[in-house]
Amino acid sequence: MSFQPSLSIAFQGEAGAYSEEAARNYFGERIQILPRSSFAAVFAAVETGQADRGLIPIENSLAGSIHRNYDLMLRHGLHIVGETHLRVRHCLLALPGTVMKDLREVRSHPQALAQCEAFLTELTGVEAVAAFDTAGSARQVKEGGDSQVAAIASARAAHVHELEILAAEIEDDATNYTRFVALGREPVSPSSDAKTSVVFTLENQPGALHGALAVFARQDIDLTKIESRPLIGKPWEYHFFLDFAGSTEEPHVMDALEELEAMAPMLRLLGSYPRERW
Amino acid sequence: MSFQPSLSIAFQGEAGAYSEEAARNYFGERIQILPRSSFAAVFAAVETGQADRGLIPIENSLAGSIHRNYDLMLRHGLHIVGETHLRVRHCLLALPGTVMKDLREVRSHPQALAQCEAFLTELTGVEAVAAFDTAGSARQVKEGGDSQVAAIASARAAHVHELEILAAEIEDDATNYTRFVALGREPVSPSSDAKTSVVFTLENQPGALHGALAVFARQDIDLTKIESRPLIGKPWEYHFFLDFAGSTEEPHVMDALEELEAMAPMLRLLGSYPRERW
Repeated sequence: MSFQPSLSIAFQGEAGAYSEEAARNYFGERIQILPRSSFAAVFAAVETGQADRGLIPIENSLAGSIHRNYDLMLRHGLHIVGETHLRVRHCLLALPGTVMKDLREVRSHPQALAQCEAFLTELTGVEAVAAFDTAGSARQVKEGGDSQVAAIASARAAHVHELEILAAEIEDDATNYTRFVALGREPVSPSSDAKTSVVFTLENQPGALHGALAVFARQDIDLTKIESRPLIGKPWEYHFFLDFAGSTEEPHVMDALEELEAMAPMLRLLGSYPRERW
Repeated sequence: MSFQPSLSIAFQGEAGAYSEEAARNYFGERIQILPRSSFAAVFAAVETGQADRGLIPIENSLAGSIHRNYDLMLRHGLHIVGETHLRVRHCLLALPGTVMKDLREVRSHPQALAQCEAFLTELTGVEAVAAFDTAGSARQVKEGGDSQVAAIASARAAHVHELEILAAEIEDDATNYTRFVALGREPVSPSSDAKTSVVFTLENQPGALHGALAVFARQDIDLTKIESRPLIGKPWEYHFFLDFAGSTEEPHVMDALEELEAMAPMLRLLGSYPRERW
């Protein structure tokens, strides 16, 4: 019988957070979780070796990119080693035995409250109260012991805090997905079916961005995401973050990156990693 | 002697906000200001005719794009009729006669506090306290009447609330600029030295973005900004917001837009407007 030590995974938030749900889906149930209070602390946990991997949300299909994490990737030298997509399913959680009609208050992160607006409008006489995060609001319901108060959080949070799921999938829009990336100290480079992420700057001159994207078009490489972030100290110039299909193990990808390097004052490979089809 | 009625300008924030400073720089001192509590209320004020123009921040050179305003431009049918850049100069404001060494508390918006971190660290024994906005923190100092409390806000806020400027340009990074755009009900189309803003979607297929940018490269049109925002209901597809040099009065710009229209499921012209050189 073989014994494999479990991976330790750092994420932002507390036990029961959507990030934990994504981590268990991706890395498996056997992981050791390391909840951290900030995204910066997740990067630090991986850098110092406290955690084997970090898992950070990078984009939500309704709210857009999480820019803080783009900025942190620039400041830290970690590698993207994987990606995973989580369908965000909000649940209404309360103490066991609670009846929906007795509810007087629903707590959650403001974004989660906003995403369940239609459902909340149906609950007459119930006040929506903002909390710091979803899993934290579930913990508050447990600790408060008040059966008139519910939280909006993940099914995982119900499990963690032994709460009852009064209603599931209460979000207005079912196309609510978050893309997470896994961070590690060492790069991985799959030989095929990969995605690659890079960040670069360009000379501030006409046609520069088109020229950079042409490099990928010539190699028939599919761009999946472009994001621009300000270049500090140079107003209206940018860091461009690009995700594309392919791995640095593939010659046509390396050709494209070499060509890009020749025109980019700065180019950094953030990682090649297995692409998650979904 | 001619009489011209003054323009009424809606902006988010209260009197003394950086948006007011930008509005007076751009439209002149004679404007009638219409402070509004949210960006959505600024759009509504212009749409309903309460205001002649709205002025909204669209990007800061340190913090990046203000995505809320990109999303609101999509939802409303207003036109971009101008742009202006404001150098954000933070001031330390207090009741007249206040001496720096007596200060115990400095209030401001968390972003302003963060941008003055080095200055605040020098002030020993002073606590930084978060407020809803910069101009509001100046008003609180005035109303509170406590000479141990200061605010970080614009010079305009000092003028509005009759406060003294204890220190000026206290921001850590002098490359702190915000770009604002002016909104109107009717388009303007300058014949030259203009910028144009558009928003479009693309088919979800390899090379689509490169193909769209190639249209501009072929006409030698300089792109000044690209921003992507999620397409609601279609995870990992985007609205692309593009700013470029040129006016819809120029034939090569119209050629490019017609070519783009042929490949874009959705294309909307947000406006051509005088370009501000800076």
